[in-house]
Amino acid sequence: MRNDQRKVNELRSITIETDYVKHPEGSVLISFGDTKVICNASVEDRVPPFLRGQGKGWITAEYAMLPRATEQRNIRESSKGKVSGRTMEIQRLIGRALRAVVDLDKIGERTLWVDCDVIQADGGTRTASITGAFVAVVLAFGKMVEKGNLKSLPVNDFLTAISVGVLADGKEILDLCYEEDSKAAVDMNIVMTGEGEFVELQGTGEESTFTMTQLQTMLSLAQEGVENLVRLQKDAIGEWAEVIEKKKSAGVAGK
Amino acid sequence: MRNDQRKVNELRSITIETDYVKHPEGSVLISFGDTKVICNASVEDRVPPFLRGQGKGWITAEYAMLPRATEQRNIRESSKGKVSGRTMEIQRLIGRALRAVVDLDKIGERTLWVDCDVIQADGGTRTASITGAFVAVVLAFGKMVEKGNLKSLPVNDFLTAISVGVLADGKEILDLCYEEDSKAAVDMNIVMTGEGEFVELQGTGEESTFTMTQLQTMLSLAQEGVENLVRLQKDAIGEWAEVIEKKKSAGVAGK
Amino acid sequence: MRNDQRKVNELRSITIETDYVKHPEGSVLISFGDTKVICNASVEDRVPPFLRGQGKGWITAEYAMLPRATEQRNIRESSKGKVSGRTMEIQRLIGRALRAVVDLDKIGERTLWVDCDVIQADGGTRTASITGAFVAVVLAFGKMVEKGNLKSLPVNDFLTAISVGVLADGKEILDLCYEEDSKAAVDMNIVMTGEGEFVELQGTGEESTFTMTQLQTMLSLAQEGVENLVRLQKDAIGEWAEVIEKKKSAGVAGK
Amino acid sequence: MRNDQRKVNELRSITIETDYVKHPEGSVLISFGDTKVICNASVEDRVPPFLRGQGKGWITAEYAMLPRATEQRNIRESSKGKVSGRTMEIQRLIGRALRAVVDLDKIGERTLWVDCDVIQADGGTRTASITGAFVAVVLAFGKMVEKGNLKSLPVNDFLTAISVGVLADGKEILDLCYEEDSKAAVDMNIVMTGEGEFVELQGTGEESTFTMTQLQTMLSLAQEGVENLVRLQKDAIGEWAEVIEKKKSAGVAGK
Amino acid sequence: MRNDQRKVNELRSITIETDYVKHPEGSVLISFGDTKVICNASVEDRVPPFLRGQGKGWITAEYAMLPRATEQRNIRESSKGKVSGRTMEIQRLIGRALRAVVDLDKIGERTLWVDCDVIQADGGTRTASITGAFVAVVLAFGKMVEKGNLKSLPVNDFLTAISVGVLADGKEILDLCYEEDSKAAVDMNIVMTGEGEFVELQGTGEESTFTMTQLQTMLSLAQEGVENLVRLQKDAIGEWAEVIEKKKSAGVAGK
Amino acid sequence: MRNDQRKVNELRSITIETDYVKHPEGSVLISFGDTKVICNASVEDRVPPFLRGQGKGWITAEYAMLPRATEQRNIRESSKGKVSGRTMEIQRLIGRALRAVVDLDKIGERTLWVDCDVIQADGGTRTASITGAFVAVVLAFGKMVEKGNLKSLPVNDFLTAISVGVLADGKEILDLCYEEDSKAAVDMNIVMTGEGEFVELQGTGEESTFTMTQLQTMLSLAQEGVENLVRLQKDAIGEWAEVIEKKKSAGVAGK
Repeated sequence: MRNDQRKVNELRSITIETDYVKHPEGSVLISFGDTKVICNASVEDRVPPFLRGQGKGWITAEYAMLPRATEQRNIRESSKGKVSGRTMEIQRLIGRALRAVVDLDKIGERTLWVDCDVIQADGGTRTASITGAFVAVVLAFGKMVEKGNLKSLPVNDFLTAISVGVLADGKEILDLCYEEDSKAAVDMNIVMTGEGEFVELQGTGEESTFTMTQLQTMLSLAQEGVENLVRLQKDAIGEWAEVIEKKKSAGVAGK
Repeated sequence: MRNDQRKVNELRSITIETDYVKHPEGSVLISFGDTKVICNASVEDRVPPFLRGQGKGWITAEYAMLPRATEQRNIRESSKGKVSGRTMEIQRLIGRALRAVVDLDKIGERTLWVDCDVIQADGGTRTASITGAFVAVVLAFGKMVEKGNLKSLPVNDFLTAISVGVLADGKEILDLCYEEDSKAAVDMNIVMTGEGEFVELQGTGEESTFTMTQLQTMLSLAQEGVENLVRLQKDAIGEWAEVIEKKKSAGVAGK
Repeated sequence: MRNDQRKVNELRSITIETDYVKHPEGSVLISFGDTKVICNASVEDRVPPFLRGQGKGWITAEYAMLPRATEQRNIRESSKGKVSGRTMEIQRLIGRALRAVVDLDKIGERTLWVDCDVIQADGGTRTASITGAFVAVVLAFGKMVEKGNLKSLPVNDFLTAISVGVLADGKEILDLCYEEDSKAAVDMNIVMTGEGEFVELQGTGEESTFTMTQLQTMLSLAQEGVENLVRLQKDAIGEWAEVIEKKKSAGVAGK
Repeated sequence: MRNDQRKVNELRSITIETDYVKHPEGSVLISFGDTKVICNASVEDRVPPFLRGQGKGWITAEYAMLPRATEQRNIRESSKGKVSGRTMEIQRLIGRALRAVVDLDKIGERTLWVDCDVIQADGGTRTASITGAFVAVVLAFGKMVEKGNLKSLPVNDFLTAISVGVLADGKEILDLCYEEDSKAAVDMNIVMTGEGEFVELQGTGEESTFTMTQLQTMLSLAQEGVENLVRLQKDAIGEWAEVIEKKKSAGVAGK
Repeated sequence: MRNDQRKVNELRSITIETDYVKHPEGSVLISFGDTKVICNASVEDRVPPFLRGQGKGWITAEYAMLPRATEQRNIRESSKGKVSGRTMEIQRLIGRALRAVVDLDKIGERTLWVDCDVIQADGGTRTASITGAFVAVVLAFGKMVEKGNLKSLPVNDFLTAISVGVLADGKEILDLCYEEDSKAAVDMNIVMTGEGEFVELQGTGEESTFTMTQLQTMLSLAQEGVENLVRLQKDAIGEWAEVIEKKKSAGVAGK
Repeated sequence: MRNDQRKVNELRSITIETDYVKHPEGSVLISFGDTKVICNASVEDRVPPFLRGQGKGWITAEYAMLPRATEQRNIRESSKGKVSGRTMEIQRLIGRALRAVVDLDKIGERTLWVDCDVIQADGGTRTASITGAFVAVVLAFGKMVEKGNLKSLPVNDFLTAISVGVLADGKEILDLCYEEDSKAAVDMNIVMTGEGEFVELQGTGEESTFTMTQLQTMLSLAQEGVENLVRLQKDAIGEWAEVIEKKKSAGVAGK
């Protein structure tokens, strides 16, 4: 039994509230238990310099936490004048993950900015961010399709992320809260498509190591979690879920 | 009639939700119409260098907007590596305002950090921030009193802020929304105590000027608005309102 | 009686030396008592990106102090690598104030850079800066008119600034020197046109408040001060003073 | 057959030159084919603030490339004034990896700084850095043991890193050179101990995904590569290899 | 004949105005023709970290130009957020030069900050800065002696600086103004003591070279100039000049 | 006798290894005793803004040290977020020196970036950098001639640099190692052409001075050293040495 009474393969209570903020093209408040992240997707009608003139689009992400999202107040990165290594890693991860399921050739010379702002943190902020960002991105593209700015939804599959880990006593668990995360021997974040393929896999033993057997158990736990997350995403995006399913069954999913 | 059907002396719909985020000692989500600001108050057990060893405390504020709080996405200040002049002005204003009604000699060598994060903007973010921050500060001090870390609530009076302005047609109005603000000839922010005394007054004619008569009309509008805001603050802080009223009637209000 | 024997409504000795430095289009050394500021106006033949292609000009200001302008040496902002919040507030204020009396539509796609560098500080550096900057700006535009680069002087009215305040004993005074300023309960800076209209009003009670009555007294003191400052500006700009007066009587002043 | 005639499970020619530079406590030039990295380990007699007074040490790493280590010259990060997200990710990875096999409780309040400077890059710079850094760290600790500054070598196991990937045609390969890396659909870096346990696993499909089967094949390739790297490390560290082997057989390896 | 009618070995008109600004311990306005520099010396009662606890003092210099000291306005270094290479070179030069004639062992654990701010530039700003800074330093130390904070003037010799150069036509000249400097093939700055010893010598052929013969001619010109500068410094520092002369004749000059 | 048994006019053992790194157009590892510098020359097909459209090229240099090139580890300038004054001085010096012997009018609108990275330091890193950079530049231009991108080698003369100094006992010496340098009373760096003309001369008495006689002795020592350095450069650049000699005898050397 875990400290919040969950089973090892049990997700926290997860909710996805859409249209949370009024200005962005796609806006979501996602909660993984007490972790709450606002995910906003904004469309900009140009691409970064390295892509100009190629008729192709781009997706980039930024991640931040409110100073008091955590138990102890953190110094604002704008006050420090630079973004931490941890922030950079996470926002690069979110961007890469989203680009794996979006058909960038189909969105024209546009950039989708995805802002993930953690307003309350209790572990798993990066996996909540990716899972929520996917919904915001689908909503933003959906709005563009409805306005006639895109022919069809340029999304090939669902995209979710979940954490798994190994506790100090050697037990593998799914969806770590902060208390578990801070004591875990191994921490792994897994980004997967709805089809169950891997997009990103990051496992770390901080001052520790893990065996092949432990790895396999963690991969299985993640797969269970992903199925549930996809179900929640489908509810959140409504009719667009069917559009994605159709594309997948028509064989255009993946690349 | 204004573009949202309000009378010239009418506030927008204003709500104050307390205990919005779980970690901070005081946490508030305040809405002035579509302007929504999270105000978190955090207690730190030390003061800035210039105050060390004086047995006195300090209050400082930081202000930020989510990139897509506005119609157009703004570049994150952490990405730019510096805080804009506008942000600095606002956070200095919030800090000064709060210090005017708090008895810093009574809080020990502690700093109260007040974070105002705008998640949705529609004009008046600085006045919403001050009005909400006051509530978060009272809640944080209240919690310290309950825990026995402070003898009594070190707050001398209520503190509210409201904007007034002059439209291009010369009409003075209260509590400008973004559409009004962007077209106004004069923009003034007024911070007042519950007693109706001024804490801060900032009036600006951007490429314009205003007369003594217009100034007096704006001051009257502000006074009307402040009374309503104090009533909302009283509801939000519950029993602490009486504590403040008693201190004022006992003559300890002001300095 | 004040500590330097002035009456409450008495300005310090004020001098304006024109053509102080040889390179700038307009250059002034202004002294408010022991406060000395070099105000240089430079013409650049382009505008910031947000104005390009609109046929309109811009005025922007920068403000700095020599490290030892003050009693204690300050660290240079170039060494710190960033401009302080105080500096930003002041330079934004100077720019806004100047733009209120200049007809930006009449200066073409040009930027007027106004540099206010305090070489000796004794309180009131921002009001001295604005009052001197106005003279430097008129001289710069005057030179452009003489060279045929402008058809007429694009200045609609005089522009002056003065400080007023409330001492700890409750007395309202005009034009605070540093010693008065550091002890004042209320500090207010008022920017006014020659016509007596307000351009900017910034009153602050640092850990204090002020009443409506005190505000009215301070406004009256400011009006007295402004009249004297306009007289000194007229002497400094010579014939251009008449040009401005004529425009005002022809009804083109204000907007 | 790969573009440089290697088999899919074949490492490039790998050399480790010890005592490459004279000042550092441990210094190595490691080559993975045309990728050449100088790894220097420096001992500092204090720890970062968060560890002070705990009697424990720390290992931290920095990573950089000479501007012309690559085909195109890169702008120096010191000139840009900030370290890129990529650099931060890599140096955080190197530090975490080394900390997993070093007994930080046994090194006193000291910091080991590990500098990995790429002088020539042809893919796999982060894996070469970790593999070389391990040798530099053992040499630095060995020197401290010889000088009597440490009782015994505080290293619990070997530590190596290798890249694996999936080419566009779906073939899994070991130790990608730059040409392969730039075209790969999947790129994975694996850090392992001599015992074959995982320290870190980072797999990424940039605009692509990978299956469970592909993952398993990549993990097998990595395990083959690691064995060869450990053999090279043993040659490089000489007698210290036996010390590590003895600790492992005595059961103190791992944590 | 030179463009301003001077002979090749003729200095521009040079003036030194003491006590220019009221706050600094030593303050000078020095003019080399149209080049005008404010040199302020400030005493701080502590030394940089690398000197703490050694009972020794330090002298450091900072140099800046007002944005419009030059024909074209320069961007402020505080706005750019960093100090240019040119500025760093000059301020390091000024500091080194002053330290060569001051007995740092005799000033206690104090730092003398010397600020050289160019308000108008017409070539030779660094030589004017050094020549003026020496006077400001003597005045500051003199004031400390008078107040009893120092036993005696810790200055061993006079210190002056002058530029020499080679024009495009091969003619060697003394004290270049901006027009000459911008066309010169060789530019050399020489810092000398009153005794005629070298403190610093910096000769540069920008896209050009110079012969041993040209070097010798430039050295002779410099020596002529220095004698005149020492005379002007003596006038400026009054009685302190005799104190320095006595120390020199008593054989304590130099080190 | 010097601490490493050298005569006062004796260089350390100097070696120049060409084609050290594979990507740059010109690459050299130069050693002055234990001082080792990688000098890489990279060609970029554009010039800085101030030269655009003039049909002329540019040479610029950057200098850095690996953190542990020295006895004590230095903080990386990329981590500090800014380049030190010392680094700026050195890289400006290297660039100026190279520009003095290269015919920038003959290289088209191209920039040659010269990176000097010190991997081991033992005094004289800036003179080793210049001497090695010259070779890298010739090799880079040579490669461009061979590829037909340049008509002829745009190099007018050899370029070398060497340090001279005065020890505390008054003895003048050539090519100071770190131990000598750190104790020297005077330190001078001299950049000369193969023809024996000066390009740059920088002599400094840190808290000390030097006489005309000492200067002349140092200049003589430098001239001896330069002859040897030119011989080594000729060996390193092979046939290109003759091309330079021919240009010189044809009278095109110098400007």
